[in-house]
Amino acid sequence: MLDYKLLEALSAIVDQGGFDRGAQQLNLTQSAVSQRIKLLEARLGQPVVVRTPRLVPTPLGQRLLNHAQQVRLLEHDLLDRIPALGERTQRLRLAINADSLATWWAPTLGDFCHRRGVLLDLVVDDQEVALRRMRDGEVAGCICATARPVQGARARALGTMRYRVMASPTFAERHFAEGVTHRTLEQAPAILYGPDDRLHQRYLDVHGIRTPFPYHLCPSSEGVLHMTLAGIGYAMIPETQAAAGLAAGDLVDLDPQQPLDVPLYWHFWRHGGELLDALTAHLLSAGDHWLIAPKAPSTAII
Amino acid sequence: MLDYKLLEALSAIVDQGGFDRGAQQLNLTQSAVSQRIKLLEARLGQPVVVRTPRLVPTPLGQRLLNHAQQVRLLEHDLLDRIPALGERTQRLRLAINADSLATWWAPTLGDFCHRRGVLLDLVVDDQEVALRRMRDGEVAGCICATARPVQGARARALGTMRYRVMASPTFAERHFAEGVTHRTLEQAPAILYGPDDRLHQRYLDVHGIRTPFPYHLCPSSEGVLHMTLAGIGYAMIPETQAAAGLAAGDLVDLDPQQPLDVPLYWHFWRHGGELLDALTAHLLSAGDHWLIAPKAPSTAII
Repeated sequence: MLDYKLLEALSAIVDQGGFDRGAQQLNLTQSAVSQRIKLLEARLGQPVVVRTPRLVPTPLGQRLLNHAQQVRLLEHDLLDRIPALGERTQRLRLAINADSLATWWAPTLGDFCHRRGVLLDLVVDDQEVALRRMRDGEVAGCICATARPVQGARARALGTMRYRVMASPTFAERHFAEGVTHRTLEQAPAILYGPDDRLHQRYLDVHGIRTPFPYHLCPSSEGVLHMTLAGIGYAMIPETQAAAGLAAGDLVDLDPQQPLDVPLYWHFWRHGGELLDALTAHLLSAGDHWLIAPKAPSTAII
Repeated sequence: MLDYKLLEALSAIVDQGGFDRGAQQLNLTQSAVSQRIKLLEARLGQPVVVRTPRLVPTPLGQRLLNHAQQVRLLEHDLLDRIPALGERTQRLRLAINADSLATWWAPTLGDFCHRRGVLLDLVVDDQEVALRRMRDGEVAGCICATARPVQGARARALGTMRYRVMASPTFAERHFAEGVTHRTLEQAPAILYGPDDRLHQRYLDVHGIRTPFPYHLCPSSEGVLHMTLAGIGYAMIPETQAAAGLAAGDLVDLDPQQPLDVPLYWHFWRHGGELLDALTAHLLSAGDHWLIAPKAPSTAII
């Protein structure tokens, strides 16, 4: 078998972003950790980390880390049954889309982490990156709008996130006094999450807009909401995230007849152990309180 | 002088993430845009963009884009005085820390963008990356906790963001029933923004904690807040962001005697033109409604 002491050292220095803090995590001296990494690299004949400008794993190092995470998940199952064997806490690395993290993710998770002794390493990515991370084994699960699982993984429908076209009353009055038309959509500044914001493009497609339009870029779900509330632009906002602003009269729905529904899927490693299966069951049972359930009729666009 | 038609083509394809959409933005055919990029690359003897897997500028291309943005800022000043000359809308690329974007940034900006015809390209970064972007000329301004400006830029104090150690009442009862002590801080799961979350480390330093502690990672300001509200961990949260949760009894301040104050500075290009100067004046006059003013007494730690 592999020498897991060496993988543990690699894992610690990458987790902690340095040899000194990695050593501290393992209660070892820095020189002991250094020697373990050197031994690992000597056995493999290749570097496992790049030291500068920031300590990051090489592609080989990343593959070793993924393997170590999978082994830990399996160990976690074992320890669940034989608690005396060791530490029950388990880190789980997941990729989540920003709008889920801004809305249903945390309340749905509830006390799952506490009950199961899980610590989360979340990464926030657009969905292509999230699926690539799944494929590379870098995350054990991800939430995205693609139904098709990558190799070695399964995917389950969680529900549908409904988006509405929102603006502040002042902005609506200033730019959409004549309603949502070809002309107003071409002239009113939108707020996009990124230059490749497909959701917004799908909305404009519905109205047949193919020409350039003015837009702000804001790569943060809450940033988009706050900028919309401040009247800086209009944006596609998850219905659940906009609810308070709508109720208070701080937001108006510019196009109530045209919500956009985005299905969300939970992707997870096929052999991720009992913990990942339990998280899957938890998300599937709890998710539909926060999303439109998978079978609801929808004007699905994406 | 440089041929700005070629730089404009480069700018359009990078902004739009592709030759086809870049061409659309310029009302040109894709082949015309392609020829401009080829001509630019032929003149320079080096590529300005990498085509796959995603269209991104090369370091040389990025330097050209920065120059083009600076020229546009100067043009914007000119057009302000001679409106008939052309389009008044100007894109401004700024790096903002996540907690500012989650709190005071958008309300403070108010109708500045509308009044001045500005479209924002925001990037969210930790502060070292933000300052590197300033140094490379990739952003025209940034907000971070460093007072010292990079070469070619100025920095002005905006105010101080006050953080408090927050948890849900259930979490506080479960993990901090005996108060904030060495033992409870070593055992309660924290929520960190990233593995190198210096703010949290400074808080633990105050209590003399140097040993490893359990933590979740969540690289999103709103994600940290939602996970704290859901009782998944405790976290350092900006006072302004936590106010609603505190008032509603959904959050408790675990350590009211120990807020952490982080000074925030606005960095901007020294020769960024009148628009950037106007934004600077606006931020300096408006910022202190949302932050603790620069001169307030504080238990500054960072």
